[in-house]
Amino acid sequence: MESGSKKWGFQVKQGMKGASTPTVRGVLYMLMDSLNKEDSRAVIPLAHGDPSHFPSFTTAAVAEDAVINSLRSAKYNCYAPTIGLPAARRAVAEYLNHDLPYKLSPDDVYLTSGCHQAIETALAVLGRPGANILLPRPGYPYYEACASYNGLEIRHFDLLPDKGWAVDLNDIEALADDNTVAMVIINPGNPCGNVFSYEHLKKFAETARDLGILVIGDEAYDKLAFGSTPYVPMRVFGSTVPILTLGSISKRWIVPGWRIGWLVTNDPNGILRNSGIIESITKILEISSDPTTFVQAAIPEILENTKEDFFSKIICLLREAADICYTRVNEIPCITCPKKPEGSMAVMVKLNPSMLEDIDDDMEFCVKLAKEESVLILPGVVLGLKNWLRITFAVEPSCLEEGLARIKAFCQRHAKKH
Amino acid sequence: MESGSKKWGFQVKQGMKGASTPTVRGVLYMLMDSLNKEDSRAVIPLAHGDPSHFPSFTTAAVAEDAVINSLRSAKYNCYAPTIGLPAARRAVAEYLNHDLPYKLSPDDVYLTSGCHQAIETALAVLGRPGANILLPRPGYPYYEACASYNGLEIRHFDLLPDKGWAVDLNDIEALADDNTVAMVIINPGNPCGNVFSYEHLKKFAETARDLGILVIGDEAYDKLAFGSTPYVPMRVFGSTVPILTLGSISKRWIVPGWRIGWLVTNDPNGILRNSGIIESITKILEISSDPTTFVQAAIPEILENTKEDFFSKIICLLREAADICYTRVNEIPCITCPKKPEGSMAVMVKLNPSMLEDIDDDMEFCVKLAKEESVLILPGVVLGLKNWLRITFAVEPSCLEEGLARIKAFCQRHAKKH
Repeated sequence: MESGSKKWGFQVKQGMKGASTPTVRGVLYMLMDSLNKEDSRAVIPLAHGDPSHFPSFTTAAVAEDAVINSLRSAKYNCYAPTIGLPAARRAVAEYLNHDLPYKLSPDDVYLTSGCHQAIETALAVLGRPGANILLPRPGYPYYEACASYNGLEIRHFDLLPDKGWAVDLNDIEALADDNTVAMVIINPGNPCGNVFSYEHLKKFAETARDLGILVIGDEAYDKLAFGSTPYVPMRVFGSTVPILTLGSISKRWIVPGWRIGWLVTNDPNGILRNSGIIESITKILEISSDPTTFVQAAIPEILENTKEDFFSKIICLLREAADICYTRVNEIPCITCPKKPEGSMAVMVKLNPSMLEDIDDDMEFCVKLAKEESVLILPGVVLGLKNWLRITFAVEPSCLEEGLARIKAFCQRHAKKH
Repeated sequence: MESGSKKWGFQVKQGMKGASTPTVRGVLYMLMDSLNKEDSRAVIPLAHGDPSHFPSFTTAAVAEDAVINSLRSAKYNCYAPTIGLPAARRAVAEYLNHDLPYKLSPDDVYLTSGCHQAIETALAVLGRPGANILLPRPGYPYYEACASYNGLEIRHFDLLPDKGWAVDLNDIEALADDNTVAMVIINPGNPCGNVFSYEHLKKFAETARDLGILVIGDEAYDKLAFGSTPYVPMRVFGSTVPILTLGSISKRWIVPGWRIGWLVTNDPNGILRNSGIIESITKILEISSDPTTFVQAAIPEILENTKEDFFSKIICLLREAADICYTRVNEIPCITCPKKPEGSMAVMVKLNPSMLEDIDDDMEFCVKLAKEESVLILPGVVLGLKNWLRITFAVEPSCLEEGLARIKAFCQRHAKKH
């Protein structure tokens, strides 16, 4: 056996393709490795938006039944078309049309494996040598990872904490050039928990139009708004500027593991169609994984027949959790929350490490917190904002109270003594 | 509204990334467009390996129940780890270990969204500027599409119809160079329906080892062998050469729409681990879609508890269908089948267009056949062999008889008159 000493052709590979940017999941796994296995207390997961394990966040019975009926029918064990089952595409178009001043057709809808695959597909379509993309800071690092994998130069525009996380539109005008292909907005906001106003979204759309840039509207948290700012989906402005809407059932139905989402071309003026983007989406999806067929087949029933009381229960829970989070965080001296969350499942809070004895930054804060208190939260540096923290409040309220109490104790223990 | 006349940044994109190579699905859609809607007869689908619609090919009850129990438990609506649920990875390792002279660990297993995502991942990991990959001709065009998307130069080695579709090993030695990263073997064979012998696979592995090339062993049709050649999985030779095994439950359990497969590193000598390939797989999977969590959770039950009588029923059906196909094809003068299929769900047959009046090649044959007889079969040109045809025999036997009778009538009608 001489294999050990051989030169293997594949070993000459230099550098790592893909995720040089850390993803939320990558950092999360690292934090989980820091957990103290001796701690008998339950781990409190405030680092990512997946409350599906908590009894209060159990999905709607109608959704679960829809999937089971679809599977039991034995009609959907087959391959689906690369762009999705026609009935599911139609249902998504109708679902989104409720809010729109123009109408989507089923042909505008491409089913994806969660919102993640919608992001992957959008950025694969837009990637070309020399192109750049404008991403929000703080943002969702999956965009950075996929942009960099697809050879897109990343330029960040700021979300302004002092202005309720509004987009710095001056920043955008300064960053964009002839090679800018798209700008991304996440509404309701992840990681900030803000909801952009109608007026602000309109200005965002007009800025994009004036610059000749496509908008990617990330609506992963569509309709999960519970504050005073009325929620308006970005896709409403499709007549102003072409928009790729990315969405899924993962968050609103609390089923991220079902892996069903969509990429939708909001293009009433036919600009995307004429540009070849539509053809390119289809080609990329031909060499991409499809969402599970029998879950696709359940989409019409899920979107049409989930009862309002399920949604309102989830909204009440999130509102209560956001209140707890905002109140408790502001009782802790070394962290402050600039704006009470109005949407999504997370909020950004500012860390003041100068008030702590032996903690230099957000990453160290999160690693030590995991180790000492079995509480997981995400360091802001991963999202582009050093010395901020992302706290996911979408957990059982009692669990959230416990988590924030542990953070308070942790901060007291590490506080500088005067 | 001035959008129509604007210059949009994303319009400057030149050329189409990705699937310049046609995929099986792409050609299939084209053929489906050729179908005559006036024909009241049922369409006979002999163009792709998905018999799940036929009653005889209904999946095992234990598999369906496993998925439903997993969903009903409400424990698997959550995100899964990027590399798959630990219990599912363990179950796949144990399932594959039954045949192996060495032992896989769960850490060798990465769950994917069907075998397709395993192909995508393997080729994304191996792609780098200047690298080339050796692919079988005829083959499965998803490899060509993914290789070209990942910048891998494609070099084809021949499968020899006169030698039972054996690999031309001399070809391989002539094609490989220092930039060759991998060679692919599909066993049981798709599209040829052959089963490679132990001796031949051993030589293939030794050739790869001597050339310093990784083997990608495509086992999408694992265990679907029903002829006189005993089936040996390529992964058996992992001690000779490092192997990436790609597999899924799609074909053996007749559930391609469930989208569960695996990429497995058969690497008892640690060569892949030392080369960085393992790290690269993990990074690629961090920015790729995951298979549906609750289907992953059903994998242990599916792999461990499906009864032998389900498998033997499917094998009997496929053997019967292969017999029908071989016999009927050889009753048609203008097509010949060089070798009776012994595995998988398809066979390659040679077309002699010189015996036909108004049909010049395999593509025209398939388009006219779809139009005139509502029978779908795949032109060999898509698989790299012009004037061959791929016939999928995995359909209800009565349907296969009907399809082949229509092909016979079609050929008689188009035969040159003497």
